[in-house]
Amino acid sequence: MVNQLPISCDKTIRSRAVERRIIEIDLSAKTVKESPLPENYRHLGGRGLTSSILSEELDPLSHPLSAANTFVIAPGLLAGTALSSCNRLSVGAKSPLTGGIKESNSGGVTGYRLGKLGIGAVKLTGVYEDGDCSWGIKISADGVSFEDLQEISGRGTYDSAGYLLEKYGKNAGLIITGPAGEMRLASACLSVNDMEGEPCRNLGRGGMGAVLGSKGIKAIIVDDSAALPPDATDPEALKELIKKFASMLREHPVTGGKFAEYGTVMNIAALDALGGLPTRNFSKGSFSGAQSINAETLRDTIRERGGLGAHACMPGCVIRCSNKYVAADGTPLVGSVDYETVCLLGSNLEIASLDQVAELNRLCNDIGVDTIETGVAIGVLAEAGLVSFGDFEAIRSLLEELKQGTPLGRLVGSGAEICGRVYGVRRVPTVKGQGMAAYDPRVIKGMGLTYSRSAMGADHTAGNAITLGIDHSDPDVQLEPVRELHVRTMVLDMLGACIFTGRVSLDKTEILEEMVRVLHGWNADFDDLRGIAREILLKEEDFNRRAGLSKPHDRLPRFMYEEKLEPTGEVYNIPDETTDRLFDFSGSGA
Amino acid sequence: MVNQLPISCDKTIRSRAVERRIIEIDLSAKTVKESPLPENYRHLGGRGLTSSILSEELDPLSHPLSAANTFVIAPGLLAGTALSSCNRLSVGAKSPLTGGIKESNSGGVTGYRLGKLGIGAVKLTGVYEDGDCSWGIKISADGVSFEDLQEISGRGTYDSAGYLLEKYGKNAGLIITGPAGEMRLASACLSVNDMEGEPCRNLGRGGMGAVLGSKGIKAIIVDDSAALPPDATDPEALKELIKKFASMLREHPVTGGKFAEYGTVMNIAALDALGGLPTRNFSKGSFSGAQSINAETLRDTIRERGGLGAHACMPGCVIRCSNKYVAADGTPLVGSVDYETVCLLGSNLEIASLDQVAELNRLCNDIGVDTIETGVAIGVLAEAGLVSFGDFEAIRSLLEELKQGTPLGRLVGSGAEICGRVYGVRRVPTVKGQGMAAYDPRVIKGMGLTYSRSAMGADHTAGNAITLGIDHSDPDVQLEPVRELHVRTMVLDMLGACIFTGRVSLDKTEILEEMVRVLHGWNADFDDLRGIAREILLKEEDFNRRAGLSKPHDRLPRFMYEEKLEPTGEVYNIPDETTDRLFDFSGSGA
Repeated sequence: MVNQLPISCDKTIRSRAVERRIIEIDLSAKTVKESPLPENYRHLGGRGLTSSILSEELDPLSHPLSAANTFVIAPGLLAGTALSSCNRLSVGAKSPLTGGIKESNSGGVTGYRLGKLGIGAVKLTGVYEDGDCSWGIKISADGVSFEDLQEISGRGTYDSAGYLLEKYGKNAGLIITGPAGEMRLASACLSVNDMEGEPCRNLGRGGMGAVLGSKGIKAIIVDDSAALPPDATDPEALKELIKKFASMLREHPVTGGKFAEYGTVMNIAALDALGGLPTRNFSKGSFSGAQSINAETLRDTIRERGGLGAHACMPGCVIRCSNKYVAADGTPLVGSVDYETVCLLGSNLEIASLDQVAELNRLCNDIGVDTIETGVAIGVLAEAGLVSFGDFEAIRSLLEELKQGTPLGRLVGSGAEICGRVYGVRRVPTVKGQGMAAYDPRVIKGMGLTYSRSAMGADHTAGNAITLGIDHSDPDVQLEPVRELHVRTMVLDMLGACIFTGRVSLDKTEILEEMVRVLHGWNADFDDLRGIAREILLKEEDFNRRAGLSKPHDRLPRFMYEEKLEPTGEVYNIPDETTDRLFDFSGSGA
Repeated sequence: MVNQLPISCDKTIRSRAVERRIIEIDLSAKTVKESPLPENYRHLGGRGLTSSILSEELDPLSHPLSAANTFVIAPGLLAGTALSSCNRLSVGAKSPLTGGIKESNSGGVTGYRLGKLGIGAVKLTGVYEDGDCSWGIKISADGVSFEDLQEISGRGTYDSAGYLLEKYGKNAGLIITGPAGEMRLASACLSVNDMEGEPCRNLGRGGMGAVLGSKGIKAIIVDDSAALPPDATDPEALKELIKKFASMLREHPVTGGKFAEYGTVMNIAALDALGGLPTRNFSKGSFSGAQSINAETLRDTIRERGGLGAHACMPGCVIRCSNKYVAADGTPLVGSVDYETVCLLGSNLEIASLDQVAELNRLCNDIGVDTIETGVAIGVLAEAGLVSFGDFEAIRSLLEELKQGTPLGRLVGSGAEICGRVYGVRRVPTVKGQGMAAYDPRVIKGMGLTYSRSAMGADHTAGNAITLGIDHSDPDVQLEPVRELHVRTMVLDMLGACIFTGRVSLDKTEILEEMVRVLHGWNADFDDLRGIAREILLKEEDFNRRAGLSKPHDRLPRFMYEEKLEPTGEVYNIPDETTDRLFDFSGSGA
C-alpha cells in the first residue's frame, strides 16, 4: 500500500534564497532527494529553470500523461521577498495539449512561499498511485511529506482550497489539481491561492493540471511558516530596492494608475477599437456588446456592489490589476475577472454580460480548466452548431457536462483543436494545438509572430505584442521588436517578475541588474540576462523539434491567411520567412 | 442556387486505356475539364498518381476539410480488363486523421469501370455546397454531370447503394460517402460496391470519407455502359496474358487455394500462435477466444449457413479471398468478413463471436467508418473504462451513437488517437494519428518499420511484413527486406494489382513487365517500375515533412518500447536509426 507517512528529506530545507535548492521527488519509488541546484541550473529561475530541466532531462517523445513526464515547479529568481510583483511561480512539463514543452506561470502566494523556503525547483517524476488522484505533497522547512487527500478527491477547486487551508493553515501556499486535472483533460489548469485564500490564480495553459493529475497528486502544499526570511547578500540594500521599485511602478501612468483603476479588461475597448477583439469564434474583430463587458462597466459594477478593485494578486504587488467580482446581491463570485477571460468567454461567445462571464469564469476555476482554452473550444463547438453563440444557459450547461465528465464535457475540456476535429470545423483558431488568446493576429500582426513561433503554442504572454508602440497593422515592422520582446519576456519569466512590470523595468533595465545583484550577489548586466534568455528560447524550441513540432507547426491556421476579418478586412500577411527568422539572434542586437 | 443540370465535359470521355485522361472538377466553380494525363503523370496510376498529384498540386498546410484539399481518384494502370485482381481503385487526399498525405485503395467494381472509360484520374477541388452532403457526380462516356442525391442524404451506405443502383443501373460503379463521412469524421471511409452490388469494399483508412463529405459529395457514380472495351496495344496478347496470369495465380498454393478456402482470416491462428495478435487494446498478443473467430470456424459457419466463401471482390479475380457472411437463419449479413476486422473488432475487444464481429462489421460499413480505426478506437475507450472488453451490447451501442452523431459517437468516429486524448489514455496504438492494423509490432517487428515509417501512418498494406519469410522476432534482419517490400508494394499499388498477387508476380516480375507492355506499350523493366515506386515513396514523405510530420512522428508509441507483450515478453526494439534508414535507397539494391 501507499506510504502515508512523512518521508524525510536528506536534510532540512534551507531558507536561504542565495543557496537555492532542488527537491526531486520520484513518485513511483516514493523517494525524495534534496540538494543544491546543480551548477548548470544555478543562474536560472522560473521558466528558465523549468524549461532547462525539461530540455535536459525529459525524453521529448514521452507520453505527457505517463510516469516519464517530468513536472517541474520553479519560483522566479526573485521570489520570497516583498519586491513588488516579483513572486510569480512557474510550472513546466511536456504538454498534453501541444505535445511540446510547456511553461505556465501565475501569481498568488505559492511562489513567494517557495522563495522563502529557499527552494529553486521541485521536480516530480513517476506516478504516485495510478488512477487515483487523492494525494498531496507538503513541502515545509521540515521536509517533504506525502499527504492523504482522499477527502477532496474529485472535489472542486474552491472546496479543495477551503479544506486545505483549514487543514494546513491559512498561510499555506497551494497548487491544486481540479476535477479536470483529475480527469487528465488537456485544458486542465492548476490553481494557486491568492492572499485571501481564493484559488483563482491559475497556472492556466497547456494542461499542466492533467500532468499533475496523471501523477496522482491532488495538491501541493507549501508551508513556509518555519522558514527564516530569505537572505539577501545585502539586507539593507534589499529594503531600499523594494521601496525604490515600488516607487518606480507607482510613478508610471499604467502600472501606477490605469491598471489599478481598470485592470486588464481595459483591453476590451482597445482591441474592439482596433478591430482585433476575437468575436464569434474569431470570425469578427469587433463586438456589438463590447461596452457591456468593458473596463468602465467592470469598475462601476464592482464599485456599486461592493466588490474589490485595485487588488494585488501576490504579496507585495503595487500594480494591483486584479479584482474581486461580486454578484448583484454582493456575494463574492470570482476573483479576478481578467481580460483574456472576458474576451474568450465573452465576445468570442457573443456573451455581453459581465455577470454571465463571471459565472462561467467561476465555474471554469472550480472545475480547473483554462478559461482561454475553454472559451476558444466552446467557440468552435458553437460554430459547429452544438450551442448558439450568446446562449448563456447552453454554454453553462457545457461546463456542467465538463464538471461531470460526460463525453461531451470531456470533449470541451480537451481543448479547441480536438473539438474542431471531432466536429469537423474548419475555423479553429489554434497553433500547436493551443487556442489563441484575446488578440486576433490578423490585426495585431506582431501577436501572430508570437502565436506562431512561441514554443508554447498560441500563447500571448511569450511576447505580448500589443504592448509595443508600433503600427500593429504593418507586417513589415514587427520582426525586430517582437524578437526583442520574446527575449525580454523570458528575462522577466526567469526572474518571476510579472510581465506588467516590464512597462517600467524594461525601460530602466539597471533595476533588473540591481535586483539580481542584491538578491543573489551576481554582477550580471542586462545583456547577460538576455543572453541566458536567448539560450532558453532556443532550448525550448529544440525540445519541440525533438518532440516532432517542426517548422510547419510554426504557422497560423490557414483560414487566417484567407478569411478577411471585419471590420478591418485584414488577413494575416506576415510572410513565413519572417516567422522563421524570429529567433535568429546572431545578426540582430537581440 | 446550385446547378442541378448536367455539365458537359470539353469532349466525350475516351474509352482507350492507352490514352488515359484526367477529369478535373472544381466543385466551387462547378466546372469540369477533361484532358489527356499530363506528361509528368503519364506513366503513373493508382497510388502513384494520387500521391504525385497531391504532392505537386496541394498545399500541405491546407485544412483537410476545406475547399483547398484535393481529392483524387485513380484506378491502377492495369484497370479495365479481366486481368485477375488488377482492378483496384485508389483515392487520395490530405488526411483529416493523420494530417499527412493519404492513399487508400479497394477492390469492387469501380476501378474496373473507370479503367474501361479510359480515365486515369478524377481530381476534385473546392466544395459543392457547404454543409450539405447531398450531391453526386456521375461519370460516363457522355461526360460528367452533377446529380441531386438529397433523397439519400444522411442515409446509410447499404440504403444508399440500393437507391443508386436502382437509379443508375445495376452495373454502375459507386463510391459512397456514408453518414460518418457526411459528419466529416476522421475515420470515415468510402464504400465501393462489389459485383453483387453490396457496398462493402472500403476505401477504408485515413478519413477519405470525411474529405469527400466535406466537399458535399454523397456519391460518385461511374457508368461505363457506353464505353468501348479498353484498347490494348495488342488485343490478342492481352487475352493470352489474362489467361496466363490466372493460371499462375491458380498454381500457387496460397493464391490458388488457401485464400479461397480460408480467406484472410487465416491470420488469426497464425498471429495468435506467434503472440502478435492484438488483444484487449494491444495489451496482449494472444486471445483465449481465438478459435471461435478463426478461419476454420468462419469457413464452417459460412458453409453450414449457406453463405458464400471463395468470393471474388472484383472483376476477374481468381484468388477469391472474400466471403459473404450470413446470419444463423441464412440472412445475408455482411461481405466480406476479413482478417483486420475480425482482429480489431474481435480479439482486440475480446469479442469471441464471429456473429458479433459480423454485426459490428455491417454496422461500420453502413455508417461508413473504417473497421480497423473503429476497433482500435473502441479498444482505447474500453481501456478508459467507458465500455467493458467483451461486452458486445455496450460496444454495439457505441456504434449506434456514432450513427446518430452524438458527442460520444462522434468521438468514436474521430479515431483512436483522439479517443485516447479525450480520455487521457496512455496505451494508444497509433502512429501519425492512425490506429494500428492487426499485427503487434513488438512481435512482427518488420511491421513496426512499416507502421512507423509509412507516410500513411500505421498502415499494414504499405509493407505487409508478415508476408516476408524471415524471423519476425529478430530486429536485425528486417531493414533490407522491408525496404524492398515497400518499393514492390508501391509497384503493385501503381498497377492497381491486389497485394496478394505479389505472392506470384513479385517472384516472377517478368509478368508485371509483360502487363505494362501489353496494356500500354511501354517497354519498362521491373527496375524501371521500382525506380518510379521509390520516387513516389519519397514524394509522399516529402509531402508529410512539408505538412509538419517530422522524424519524431516516424516512431511507435512509447508504450511499445517499454511494455512487454505477453505471452512472448517482447518489446519493440528496432533502433530509431534503422527506421530512419528505411527509405535510404541509394546504397542498397532497393
